[in-house]
Amino acid sequence: MTTNRIPRAPESFAVPRGLLYGAAEGAIKKPGRLDVGVITGERLVAAAVFTTNRFAAAPVIVSREILRRNSGQVAGVVVNSGCANAVTGPRGLEDAWRMSEALGAQVPALVCSTGTIGVHLPMERLLPAVARAKESAGSSAGDFLRLADAILTTDTRRKVAAAGIPGSSAVMVGCAKGAGMIAPSMATMLAFVATDARICAADLQRSVARISNRTLNCLTVDGDTSTNDTLIGISSGCTGPEIVAGSPEHAAFEAALEEVLQSLTIQLAADGEGATTVIEVAVSGARDFAEARAAALKVANSPLVKTAVHGRDANWGRIAMALGNSGAEFEPAEVDIAMESMPLLSRGTPVPFDEGEALRILDTDYLRVSCRIGNGPGEARVWTCDFSKQYIEINGAYRT
Amino acid sequence: MTTNRIPRAPESFAVPRGLLYGAAEGAIKKPGRLDVGVITGERLVAAAVFTTNRFAAAPVIVSREILRRNSGQVAGVVVNSGCANAVTGPRGLEDAWRMSEALGAQVPALVCSTGTIGVHLPMERLLPAVARAKESAGSSAGDFLRLADAILTTDTRRKVAAAGIPGSSAVMVGCAKGAGMIAPSMATMLAFVATDARICAADLQRSVARISNRTLNCLTVDGDTSTNDTLIGISSGCTGPEIVAGSPEHAAFEAALEEVLQSLTIQLAADGEGATTVIEVAVSGARDFAEARAAALKVANSPLVKTAVHGRDANWGRIAMALGNSGAEFEPAEVDIAMESMPLLSRGTPVPFDEGEALRILDTDYLRVSCRIGNGPGEARVWTCDFSKQYIEINGAYRT
Repeated sequence: MTTNRIPRAPESFAVPRGLLYGAAEGAIKKPGRLDVGVITGERLVAAAVFTTNRFAAAPVIVSREILRRNSGQVAGVVVNSGCANAVTGPRGLEDAWRMSEALGAQVPALVCSTGTIGVHLPMERLLPAVARAKESAGSSAGDFLRLADAILTTDTRRKVAAAGIPGSSAVMVGCAKGAGMIAPSMATMLAFVATDARICAADLQRSVARISNRTLNCLTVDGDTSTNDTLIGISSGCTGPEIVAGSPEHAAFEAALEEVLQSLTIQLAADGEGATTVIEVAVSGARDFAEARAAALKVANSPLVKTAVHGRDANWGRIAMALGNSGAEFEPAEVDIAMESMPLLSRGTPVPFDEGEALRILDTDYLRVSCRIGNGPGEARVWTCDFSKQYIEINGAYRT
Repeated sequence: MTTNRIPRAPESFAVPRGLLYGAAEGAIKKPGRLDVGVITGERLVAAAVFTTNRFAAAPVIVSREILRRNSGQVAGVVVNSGCANAVTGPRGLEDAWRMSEALGAQVPALVCSTGTIGVHLPMERLLPAVARAKESAGSSAGDFLRLADAILTTDTRRKVAAAGIPGSSAVMVGCAKGAGMIAPSMATMLAFVATDARICAADLQRSVARISNRTLNCLTVDGDTSTNDTLIGISSGCTGPEIVAGSPEHAAFEAALEEVLQSLTIQLAADGEGATTVIEVAVSGARDFAEARAAALKVANSPLVKTAVHGRDANWGRIAMALGNSGAEFEPAEVDIAMESMPLLSRGTPVPFDEGEALRILDTDYLRVSCRIGNGPGEARVWTCDFSKQYIEINGAYRT
């Protein structure tokens, strides 16, 4: 089996200066598991992108408001897993504010929750756990890994990525969670990227939005956008010089951000509920990026494509079907489809292929499907995973 | 278990006068199964709606052209299962024309194919089978049932419905096929409705389009719109008087058409790949029908909602999530969600419910989910099925 393209979460890495990470057990998930986390520091700036779901969760509403009021100045982040605090009415909003204030700083902290929808937070257990997480917070890679573990729900493993920023001694670390209800339309379920690079809140916001658009926003597990999706970028600004928008340092910063977010994106796809194979769908020749991404997402969301890959079946007809449904405007007679380097459809005509060779290519944990739909300049890559019986098992008995 | 709302295909029924149905074995599917069918008669008029997939199959392209050229006058319908003749290039188009001409009449016949995409028709077996189907054609209910069987692929049972037209001695019979790749955007995979009511081609076209919009176009199994979707309405005109648009007779005709198409729609949902439960999603209070249907379809297409129903889990949070993703504009604080008569969310606030009662309600082969999203006049009902491991089994090993 081919296996070399899925990034592994590192165990040791350089951490940004000026940031502390803490985690604690709040008995919100099953007892004995970390489910509360904090990020703290002095004079932090933050930026974030959030779900577009109309039922935006209480922590999303509160965090948006905090960023707006304080122009990106925050005390840190407070997060819990096990309860999404979504569709919880006025009491849910009040709980999210109290959770934010639990860091006890002059400016409020951003707040995130993930887990079951429609259930209230157990504040009597949550607030003491936030205090414990804050007390125990430290700045080592091990501390960051505990935070990365505290945000997981149905994930089978943690997602972590780290990168240096070329030409600078500043670094960047990121973590994410999510395995189902993943079709980010602003960001994935929860992801945090921390850095000590000195960048202002407005530029950080632009970079987070721009880079998430071609990484986390190009990810789908099941086409279902969650009520709690949040990506937060947070900086201590400890390591100068100041990054100026448009400078070579800014380009290096965004390259590092893309490296971290793309790695997290692929790690999320690899741990999609029931997944055995990451599928990268690349579409080129579209009118623009938006059309290419829409076409690629339609392929990536098709249950028929995802089950075919699971069954190791080079059933390119289903890929053609999905492209044809995507709203992209193309001529069927101009379409090419390939799996890895094996052409399956060329200029709209089926290419005979060797089934043995196809099986060999499909025996992988990372399959690249490429589609050329015309001669336009638009191209995009999206990531998803195959669809297995385990997805049904996991989701047929999640809440009960 | 509650079970009373899924229509069963009748075995005996009155058939329209002036139409003949034939079927034959062409060894396109496995040998020993009917896979070729014809509908013939004298001076037939027909109307049809087709897939919106950009990779429209060769028979769709040919049938569209025939209807246009002949203003709805056709020799009948020729259909095969086992091979979709889709994404088959110029040779596929030529094959579809030859298949159409195989009925050997002065005006051409409409032509439909369903089955695997990207494979050429075995014309050397198909054309003799069309001749045999034509020779053996008859006008009894049994002949219609053989046609209904000849169009099936991964279906586990035939879909048939019949209706009288109130105030007239004319009748209507319909059949359909489809179990996967079902998200009709003009019609379902294949459906035929035959009648002897005297109606002109233009009025028949309007009725077929109008009624399919709230029946077959409100159906989804997996969100994947096929390349071959075709609904054909065909009339011998043998039983008068002429139906005039806007008359009471016209309303009665459309009521019968809706009865037949809605029955086929629910039968299709009930036989969705791996299905154990039909889910009816009703959305009301939307701005208009289009918004209500889009919201209902988003719920019906959510793998998380479909697996929850499969797991007998009253997980209304996933329904809220899907509504929030649908693009419908509503206030979360105004939303009600219920399963059957059990309220789960009222004005955006969770309603405590009894888990035993929920289990009793969910132990059914037909579950009604209703959502009120505001005070608008728009409402729609859509039908889908739950998502089970059998879906993965069926589609992970279909082509091989």
